Amino acid sequence: MRKVKIHITLKEGVLDPQGKAVQNSLRSLEYDNVNEVRVGKYMEVMMEDTADIEKQIDRMCDQLLANPVIEDYSYTIEEVV
Amino acid sequence: MRKVKIHITLKEGVLDPQGKAVQNSLRSLEYDNVNEVRVGKYMEVMMEDTADIEKQIDRMCDQLLANPVIEDYSYTIEEVV
Repeated sequence: MRKVKIHITLKEGVLDPQGKAVQNSLRSLEYDNVNEVRVGKYMEVMMEDTADIEKQIDRMCDQLLANPVIEDYSYTIEEVV
Repeated sequence: MRKVKIHITLKEGVLDPQGKAVQNSLRSLEYDNVNEVRVGKYMEVMMEDTADIEKQIDRMCDQLLANPVIEDYSYTIEEVV
């Protein structure tokens, strides 16, 4: 069994209104040292190991989990006993 | 300047309908080896360094970014030049 930790973030240059809203909220709570907030997604996928697990994860991200036009993804794979 | 990477995940035992939906979608795309999906949030916060930055981040998470009743958070702090 593998635990795959996937990070999905907006590409640089893509506007992030959700992050901007969080940033404004933090500012209004007087966290004045906050300069920028970018919000992304984080997923933990438990899956059976296969020979081509990295290819499979790439396909899953491109097909469903991320929007490759505006998002980047990265992942790490951990062994779970 | 510091880049703070914050992970917000549902506590163990809390139902995750969004993760379940992603899991079902992956199954219907014939990724049959996927056993469980949990969806969380990931934020990157750029902020000026302060003496008590960890305390500040804890406060930010408790007050605004995470819901401490059902969510856990963790973070790492990186120096950015």
